[in-house]
Amino acid sequence: MRVYNFSAGPSMLPEEVVKEAAKNIEDYAGSGMSVMEMSHRSKWYDAINTECLALVRELMNVPENYEIIFVQGGASQQFDAIPLNLLSSFDEKADYIVTGNFANKAYKAAKKFGDIRLVASSEDKTYTYIPKTTKDDFRKDAKYVYICENNTIFGGKYWELPDTGDIPIVADLSSCIMSQEIDVSKYGVIYAGAQKNLAPAGVTIVIIRKDLLGKANPLCPTMLNWQTQIDANSLYNTPPCWSIYMMMLNLRYLKKMGGVKAIEAINRKKAAMLYDFIDNSSFYNNYVEKDARSIMNIPFVSPSAELDAKFVKEAEAEGLVSLKGHKLVGGMRASIYNAMPIEGIEKLISFMKKFEEENK
Amino acid sequence: MRVYNFSAGPSMLPEEVVKEAAKNIEDYAGSGMSVMEMSHRSKWYDAINTECLALVRELMNVPENYEIIFVQGGASQQFDAIPLNLLSSFDEKADYIVTGNFANKAYKAAKKFGDIRLVASSEDKTYTYIPKTTKDDFRKDAKYVYICENNTIFGGKYWELPDTGDIPIVADLSSCIMSQEIDVSKYGVIYAGAQKNLAPAGVTIVIIRKDLLGKANPLCPTMLNWQTQIDANSLYNTPPCWSIYMMMLNLRYLKKMGGVKAIEAINRKKAAMLYDFIDNSSFYNNYVEKDARSIMNIPFVSPSAELDAKFVKEAEAEGLVSLKGHKLVGGMRASIYNAMPIEGIEKLISFMKKFEEENK
Repeated sequence: MRVYNFSAGPSMLPEEVVKEAAKNIEDYAGSGMSVMEMSHRSKWYDAINTECLALVRELMNVPENYEIIFVQGGASQQFDAIPLNLLSSFDEKADYIVTGNFANKAYKAAKKFGDIRLVASSEDKTYTYIPKTTKDDFRKDAKYVYICENNTIFGGKYWELPDTGDIPIVADLSSCIMSQEIDVSKYGVIYAGAQKNLAPAGVTIVIIRKDLLGKANPLCPTMLNWQTQIDANSLYNTPPCWSIYMMMLNLRYLKKMGGVKAIEAINRKKAAMLYDFIDNSSFYNNYVEKDARSIMNIPFVSPSAELDAKFVKEAEAEGLVSLKGHKLVGGMRASIYNAMPIEGIEKLISFMKKFEEENK
Repeated sequence: MRVYNFSAGPSMLPEEVVKEAAKNIEDYAGSGMSVMEMSHRSKWYDAINTECLALVRELMNVPENYEIIFVQGGASQQFDAIPLNLLSSFDEKADYIVTGNFANKAYKAAKKFGDIRLVASSEDKTYTYIPKTTKDDFRKDAKYVYICENNTIFGGKYWELPDTGDIPIVADLSSCIMSQEIDVSKYGVIYAGAQKNLAPAGVTIVIIRKDLLGKANPLCPTMLNWQTQIDANSLYNTPPCWSIYMMMLNLRYLKKMGGVKAIEAINRKKAAMLYDFIDNSSFYNNYVEKDARSIMNIPFVSPSAELDAKFVKEAEAEGLVSLKGHKLVGGMRASIYNAMPIEGIEKLISFMKKFEEENK
């Protein structure tokens, strides 16, 4: 039985995409081998790489003055790569806003490589809101302003980008990429680990405005330097071929179903169903301010930690899995990325109703 | 039709391993999801990670005073990680031996992070031999001596480790790991991209003697610091789960067929068949000195570049694919890793005979 998997990542893939991968796993496109076995210099893999890069550009409407690369190491590796690519020396400046655990990690990592300032944080209220900032909060000579757009753990979301004037915004979109339409031209750099909305784990997308390149710290390691993969069309060394192949299949599927605009409508509907149910319940609670709520990651609690544990266990028995909240938050968390069907939300809400009735 | 794939990497996996992966791709171990979809914190993935690490330790007989980790970024990322982990400051020393293209890349990368000396090179004869060195060639205060044990491109192989006295040897085993029994205790650090003998691309193994840890350059990025994954049992951030799962399946298979000792006997037989044929032919040539020949990567040429191109094309039509030599060498190259069956070598030799008869 296929379960509804609410994992924060790696997470569900569309069933059709997994079936397509299964069908071709032993022999891809008449090559006589699996995509897992073929040279990354082969004509088959070259076509996969090219199509996947093109699909990212098309589906996100990435302007021509932006590069797109595939890298390894996860978003965590970008925490170091960002200052190493954007700050030429250790005395150059960058401003960070911390709205959750991963933004905080990015901030701390950057301090090693530049003059980094914490401009705002929502830590005082357990990251349940997005701090207000104005253009004047940022240093005029900051090379970039860093945000994490969607907070996977605490469930907060930037619904309006901070006004940073001319300072480019660098944004971690790991848990919201391609979940809604965005205007890429408003960003300097976008990056995202693929294992939530795009592909199995192992590949990270980085999208960089071209004028921000060429300024890396001379000590930036080769594999952290974005230029390395830009110059090689993401084939500098052996890429994580299978993950990129799966991303291609998944993006083909997204395109077929209407692209990001279509999935955004479904995502908003899914999130609204769940938030409406929680807000109308006196049993469940979500603590994130309403204008800062993620439509991808929805944490909630029942009246007690004991009931939370019981909820997670009983939900799993019903095929609603990985609902346990992050250890920093406790309670439950429903991560409802692109591949989570509406039926999964309906089934979750039915279960929540039943659980409330049995335990209130 | 399944082909015999002589790619230098990514390369063939045992057919049984691909079939096992295919069987479980949609629902792993009754979890109701693919390994590609499950949380890396789930009980299923935790078991995969634990078993795979244990299989590496068992099959390579890794002593208890060595750590084993899985990282991303390929061997190329280790070119920077090695000096950043082993040299505490930019004035500490390391000595390099360059026996091919990747050793040369590692040497050049390291120069950014320490006092690096080139001790020996076989570039003068296109890397067709292993330079002789003695203990006195190395600086007494070098923190390590670097070698690439098997040269994927030029087909050379270290059959006896250099005598470095007390200086630890750091070795790139990307194209020979688990192809033959080795004594891990003779090394300080062993690392290998998995995409040749172990798994699909996306994961790299690093094996580190514990007393070499704790000395990283303060500027070492978090994801390049081996301690990061050591402290987290290789689960610091989302790992390339599918590649590690495939490695587990492949290592289970290797164990079942008798382990490294058993595959070494087969590998030696395969290589001997091909070298014997080449050496007894007046049509084909391999230029590597006999005592330095790889049993994994066997480059060879026909009498002309035109015939080489014809060979590659006609071989492909017979289901013998990816035989084109690396652009730095030309000619042909048969990469015959663990998963290449003896039947593949027999078929290649038959084809070589026929081609010789038709073209001599």
